[in-house]
Amino acid sequence: MIDASRFLADLHQLRSFGATGTGVVRPAFSPPDILARDWLAARMQDAGLSVQFDAMGNLFGLAEGKSLLLGSHSDTQPTGGWLDGALGVIAALEVARAARAAGGPAISVVSFQDEEGRFGGTTGSAVWTEMMTVAEADAVADTDGVTLAEARQVLGDRVGPDVDPARFTGFIELHIEQGPTLDAAGEQIGLVTDIVGYREMMVTFSGQQNHAGTTPMALRRDAFQGLSAFNSRLNDRLRNVVTPQSVWTIGHVQVAPNAASIVPGQVRFSMQWRDGSADRLGRMEAVITETLAEVAAEMGLGLDQGAVLGLEPVAMDPTLRTRLEAAAEAVAPGRWRSMQSGALHDATNVARLMPVAMLFVPSIGGISHAFEEDTAEVDLVAGLQVLAHAAGVHT
Amino acid sequence: MIDASRFLADLHQLRSFGATGTGVVRPAFSPPDILARDWLAARMQDAGLSVQFDAMGNLFGLAEGKSLLLGSHSDTQPTGGWLDGALGVIAALEVARAARAAGGPAISVVSFQDEEGRFGGTTGSAVWTEMMTVAEADAVADTDGVTLAEARQVLGDRVGPDVDPARFTGFIELHIEQGPTLDAAGEQIGLVTDIVGYREMMVTFSGQQNHAGTTPMALRRDAFQGLSAFNSRLNDRLRNVVTPQSVWTIGHVQVAPNAASIVPGQVRFSMQWRDGSADRLGRMEAVITETLAEVAAEMGLGLDQGAVLGLEPVAMDPTLRTRLEAAAEAVAPGRWRSMQSGALHDATNVARLMPVAMLFVPSIGGISHAFEEDTAEVDLVAGLQVLAHAAGVHT
Repeated sequence: MIDASRFLADLHQLRSFGATGTGVVRPAFSPPDILARDWLAARMQDAGLSVQFDAMGNLFGLAEGKSLLLGSHSDTQPTGGWLDGALGVIAALEVARAARAAGGPAISVVSFQDEEGRFGGTTGSAVWTEMMTVAEADAVADTDGVTLAEARQVLGDRVGPDVDPARFTGFIELHIEQGPTLDAAGEQIGLVTDIVGYREMMVTFSGQQNHAGTTPMALRRDAFQGLSAFNSRLNDRLRNVVTPQSVWTIGHVQVAPNAASIVPGQVRFSMQWRDGSADRLGRMEAVITETLAEVAAEMGLGLDQGAVLGLEPVAMDPTLRTRLEAAAEAVAPGRWRSMQSGALHDATNVARLMPVAMLFVPSIGGISHAFEEDTAEVDLVAGLQVLAHAAGVHT
Repeated sequence: MIDASRFLADLHQLRSFGATGTGVVRPAFSPPDILARDWLAARMQDAGLSVQFDAMGNLFGLAEGKSLLLGSHSDTQPTGGWLDGALGVIAALEVARAARAAGGPAISVVSFQDEEGRFGGTTGSAVWTEMMTVAEADAVADTDGVTLAEARQVLGDRVGPDVDPARFTGFIELHIEQGPTLDAAGEQIGLVTDIVGYREMMVTFSGQQNHAGTTPMALRRDAFQGLSAFNSRLNDRLRNVVTPQSVWTIGHVQVAPNAASIVPGQVRFSMQWRDGSADRLGRMEAVITETLAEVAAEMGLGLDQGAVLGLEPVAMDPTLRTRLEAAAEAVAPGRWRSMQSGALHDATNVARLMPVAMLFVPSIGGISHAFEEDTAEVDLVAGLQVLAHAAGVHT
């Protein structure tokens, strides 16, 4: 039987490693992260699971034979919330415990390492699923110049052999939504249909720097005006291409020389867009590229587009989704919805190797990646129950 | 008689103080600035003028009795051009020399100090015209924390009594245009009608910082989108209010937190506008203020407007302008125009106390405040001749 009190107690215990105000500072390979992983390993052992750290620091608690894998990550953002990743790990642990007590089914647990990207992003699961080699990951340095190779030395003799993905029938990840949709709608459960793909590039418009007093408007080539015109026109043009779930963002803007009395000669900005359809991602890219070229030509600006980086959308497994839908209807009738995940997760990588599904609980105010991140306990427990039910464990 | 060769030789001699590449580094009170002022003082003495430094370091070469004042400033920008200010000072010196040789009229010469604003802007003439007190000016610190009080110690015993503005019948300043109009039109002389007024304020839009993947477009309050919408709407609304000579500029933009994956929660930007009509400046301000409030309300953004700083427009004296027009038609028939000055000058301050006029020669490519600043010698000489003619000195 699922024990909600035990689950919440463990969740708060994990919170204590690196606790800071209402949040947590527990980056990958930091002392609190290692302490937390050792504590998790002990909890897994108590639950009768076979504990295994791999070379990246991914921590597995393994059932014998073929099993369903549940879990998430226990590292946090530099200024992180207490539930981001931690919820899915502790929920998995609780479901595994209840399954063992009931004599089945076989449930394994994972806490991936460095999902938050001290060394890139979803790093531990990326190496486990062979999206990148250990050598490639080892070369990445954090913002202080420390490499992953150096940082993971701290694992010492915890490291054992790699865990074979083939032993798992699938992976289900419970996570906080990190967005406002469920909270705004007063719903409890979000069943993920797709993890959206995303694309991003840096763009530079070049105009002519000039005296802001003596340069007539008609003779200016103002790079900021180019950005503003592009932004307005893009919002207009994308309407025919996008759905209400598509997102696009200009989040980083750097004007040069950035002085009140100088007409901007240059602006460098980020253009990022996300959608659950690879086809639509491509059509958005075409609109963006055409609109950039059009505005640059009309306004006499130079245009430099950096390389387009990104990840393709990942569809969740239909069979696992069906089980989750039945579970959600049983636990939270009329208070669940299907929705996309606009954020990347370890599940994005794991989907390369096995059937994957995700479910969300609300984020209060949509807040995440901040100390204020929170979810009502009744919703945390509902998420646990849906996960357990879908995994075939009585709640 | 005006001696163009002597004028050009002196202009190049002044250039040598702080020469750096094709430009000049000669900030107020720096060693090259003091050396240059001592050299100018000696040239003024040779010309039969009575030399006087005031407490600010403004340098005067005085004719007896009532005289017309000509001049400009000899300090430069941190990375300055060789003609900005220097042209007006050396042209004044040449006209004064020729006037003395001819027995009249009475012409005095000035090189104001710190027009370029190491300690504010048009500092020397602002104190001389009592727009600010010595104590107020003394308290201003440069970007390295040195105060004007400390910096002007270097004047030592050069400092004499203040010069009484009442001894002058008026002030004419020859300056480079620092804009593209004359150069683009292939003209030689610009006769200034007004020094435009300007207004400036810092504005902050506050929205809601959010995850760029998980926050639906419909639930965003993106502060950068507010800036873009404001900018577009402002350009549209101002059309009914402005003339082709009005200018407005968003030159400084700071987005927060300025990250590609985060919906901008805040943007702080500068809003500056200039016009020759105080009335129109006010109407532009009303449009700007209304449009800011409208956009903020529509988009659910917080709005913070800083104090509006500025200077009122200054009309040039009609009598001096008439003399300059006759001179321009004589020296450069069909190759002169009347125009506004979009940049501030010492003449802005001096106009408080006496009739003032300004004239421009072209800036090649409109470039100023850069080492590349330049003007063709034939145009420099034309400016000198128009100045002399208007001052009543035979060319």
